[in-house]
Amino acid sequence: MSEREVDVVVIGAGPAGENAAGRLAEGGLEVAIVERELLGGECSYWACMPSKALLRPAQALAEARRVHGAREAVGGKLDVGAALERRDEIIHELDDSGQVPWLEERGVALLRAEGQLEGERRVRAGDDLLTARRAVVVASGTTAALPPIEGLEAARPWTNREATTAKAAPERLVVLGGGVVGVELAQAWASLGSKVVLVEAMDTLIAREEPFAGEQVEEALRDAGVDVRMGARATSVRREEGGDATAPVSSAPGDEGCDAPVARGDQPAGGEAVVELEDGDSVRGDELLLAVGRAPRVDGLGLDTVGLTADGPLAVDERMQVGGLGWLYAVGDVNGRAPLTHMGKYQARIAADQILGRGTTAAQWDGPLAPRVIFTEPQVAAVGHTLDSAREAGVDVRAVDYPTGGVAGSSFHGRGGSGTARIVVDEQRGVLIGATFTGPDVAELLHAASIAVVGEVPLERLRHAVPAFPTRSEVWLRLLEGYGL
Amino acid sequence: MSEREVDVVVIGAGPAGENAAGRLAEGGLEVAIVERELLGGECSYWACMPSKALLRPAQALAEARRVHGAREAVGGKLDVGAALERRDEIIHELDDSGQVPWLEERGVALLRAEGQLEGERRVRAGDDLLTARRAVVVASGTTAALPPIEGLEAARPWTNREATTAKAAPERLVVLGGGVVGVELAQAWASLGSKVVLVEAMDTLIAREEPFAGEQVEEALRDAGVDVRMGARATSVRREEGGDATAPVSSAPGDEGCDAPVARGDQPAGGEAVVELEDGDSVRGDELLLAVGRAPRVDGLGLDTVGLTADGPLAVDERMQVGGLGWLYAVGDVNGRAPLTHMGKYQARIAADQILGRGTTAAQWDGPLAPRVIFTEPQVAAVGHTLDSAREAGVDVRAVDYPTGGVAGSSFHGRGGSGTARIVVDEQRGVLIGATFTGPDVAELLHAASIAVVGEVPLERLRHAVPAFPTRSEVWLRLLEGYGL
Repeated sequence: MSEREVDVVVIGAGPAGENAAGRLAEGGLEVAIVERELLGGECSYWACMPSKALLRPAQALAEARRVHGAREAVGGKLDVGAALERRDEIIHELDDSGQVPWLEERGVALLRAEGQLEGERRVRAGDDLLTARRAVVVASGTTAALPPIEGLEAARPWTNREATTAKAAPERLVVLGGGVVGVELAQAWASLGSKVVLVEAMDTLIAREEPFAGEQVEEALRDAGVDVRMGARATSVRREEGGDATAPVSSAPGDEGCDAPVARGDQPAGGEAVVELEDGDSVRGDELLLAVGRAPRVDGLGLDTVGLTADGPLAVDERMQVGGLGWLYAVGDVNGRAPLTHMGKYQARIAADQILGRGTTAAQWDGPLAPRVIFTEPQVAAVGHTLDSAREAGVDVRAVDYPTGGVAGSSFHGRGGSGTARIVVDEQRGVLIGATFTGPDVAELLHAASIAVVGEVPLERLRHAVPAFPTRSEVWLRLLEGYGL
Repeated sequence: MSEREVDVVVIGAGPAGENAAGRLAEGGLEVAIVERELLGGECSYWACMPSKALLRPAQALAEARRVHGAREAVGGKLDVGAALERRDEIIHELDDSGQVPWLEERGVALLRAEGQLEGERRVRAGDDLLTARRAVVVASGTTAALPPIEGLEAARPWTNREATTAKAAPERLVVLGGGVVGVELAQAWASLGSKVVLVEAMDTLIAREEPFAGEQVEEALRDAGVDVRMGARATSVRREEGGDATAPVSSAPGDEGCDAPVARGDQPAGGEAVVELEDGDSVRGDELLLAVGRAPRVDGLGLDTVGLTADGPLAVDERMQVGGLGWLYAVGDVNGRAPLTHMGKYQARIAADQILGRGTTAAQWDGPLAPRVIFTEPQVAAVGHTLDSAREAGVDVRAVDYPTGGVAGSSFHGRGGSGTARIVVDEQRGVLIGATFTGPDVAELLHAASIAVVGEVPLERLRHAVPAFPTRSEVWLRLLEGYGL
């Protein structure tokens, strides 16, 4: 048991926590960071990074197959073993030692323990008790949400963790939920050989995006052999044990008690998961992936010791301060503003600058309007409003659509490369307030829209930013022409 | 012989001319367009489009080979025949009939003839004499420049036309000139099997771009087996006829007299081209590609009939008007402002809006600072100033560099994916005035920079435009952090 005083304590070393700690330390403060699992967090090991690693080989291959001259060289099949090996490399075999030097170089003290508030500006980290002279930053992230479906826990479902670290493709995979995690991992495993069923209770996938995005992703999933069940509500789940059910029972999702990261995907759950649907039908799989949302990790943070309670996200203001306490901040997914790695890092910069006393501005655009990419094929890249969300917000808007692949630059990127580009224009202000691009490999088209939207560049100026010929970015030209410019 | 009156006559149906005609017609004017060769112009058949078609297969294949899981499926070699077939498809086998409906739908009259001014607002087009009520728009483009090197013409060199339409890869190709055309076609043919020598008189390739761009392209060319001769000045050229020199003598470059497009690359020139260098060395090839710049096509335009002369570009003001005549415009490469297809189309929109009496603004950023992409591997994408050009312009600037591939998003795009990203910041105004990206497949990263530069988005605002994780656009984050934001 030791006591120690620093300027700032950061709880959680995912991207948001690490970035806060790094920036604060670079700003001259003495910083300690407390992490119970891996430096780099969910994103680096069990979410963004491995899911993209699993998706990418099929996309690179599909693109080569669309390009004449290249396609003839592609005789073989995607090598699942090699793809999984590369995934393991990208997640560093769940070893975070490579991340330690980054903290060390910045003089950030690392405590490998569960961090818990113990009164004002005090954080317990295992045997250590830390006092923060200036601030405590909570960046504890989220866990997979467990929906109230009968029998779910006992059926030993996969969460994102098992689904991103599995050592082999399950023969049959049932995915519960057609949000971002659901569609990405359904497509990834289908491309790696699994027979996938996707069960979504609503009538649309990735429902917050433009309707055409969900439709196009649904079509692509079906083309890839995924059995997509829309408007299908799961009523109960069970696991029927098979004769070879020798695999250990895995931990339940949302289990806060595990001390070390566990790649629970390294062994099959055994038997067969059966999902009963409301309409009387049922679907079966060797594994069942739970992808129905995330729950902020607020339990066990000791919020009660500073007079707070939270059974949802840890609410913050635009400077990432919690409850007007002055010394307590929350950044990243735990605050629920925009559960995206890049926005967590953005919030970390905002909070750090605030703590450092730099006259920084408040967070902008970090709610549901934040830039976002879904890395399926077709990819979906969006920023700001959809047409519907703009209308709901009462803005006088007009949308212009154009086929993403309908420009000369797409000739070189495969004939299948269609998709849709949409801009949403605020008619009163003459600026973009939203843009969505779908199609193969559109992720890098997004940042131009983000700058236009966040920069509030008037359309009258935007027309002078000329996309180069023959790039696919020329779709901008068509969109602006479609608006009448 | 017929006489006819229309609102506007456009001379030249390349991208600039076509876009001017189309926009004017859509604006309600009666328009005639005069074209002596192919609708779509140099760009569509002998420049941008085929060169990208020749470059793309190797790049798509290289990318698939960099991605584990995909690479194992790529057992074969690039199929040169298939690549050339696709190139032929992209240039429509030099048949422009597919372009005719676009003009017809807009009611634009097409005259297939050489267009020539014959006094104020009058254009001769073969047997037709056109009178323009409002304006004449010259969009006659450029031809390959013929440098004063002894013996050049007699050596039957290729221009961009033969080099983009050749029916087979020459066994040995000598490229004279290391500008955009030279480096793109050197790399394209090397990837298709030619043994290439690139001769550049200066000490740097693509000299107007950031020095690191030329260096990286040079290294890539050498890695691809191209024999790059820097600081090598050609003093004379000759063709030594071989025993099998049965091929017809091809037209000389810059020959204005040809009535129909000729794919002179369909037969080898025969014998061996020998280039003597200043240092006493010589290089030899089956074909010799001339890529030392372009000459505006002003001869034969009848400029003298309206009191003008031009032995260089047809100078225009920022509204694309020539010589203060009020009725004469020049758009696209012939005006020399920014010889790039997208800027020609931009100028066409400016001129058309001017003629239509729309209160449009003048052209901005269409000089050497215009957005530009070189489609080699690594690609080079740039907008606005380089560090050198900004300093020469007397701006108080600071540059920030970051490896283009130094972000998480690059993990999925091949390990070779490095390159350099540079922003050039105007310190007084706090805005970007230039950006350059090099690396594989960076073309689509450019438009974000173009919007930031042309939109003059303050850096203090730009920091709130957050690149999505894990995209390669996150290099923006590092660049802004490098600047101190």
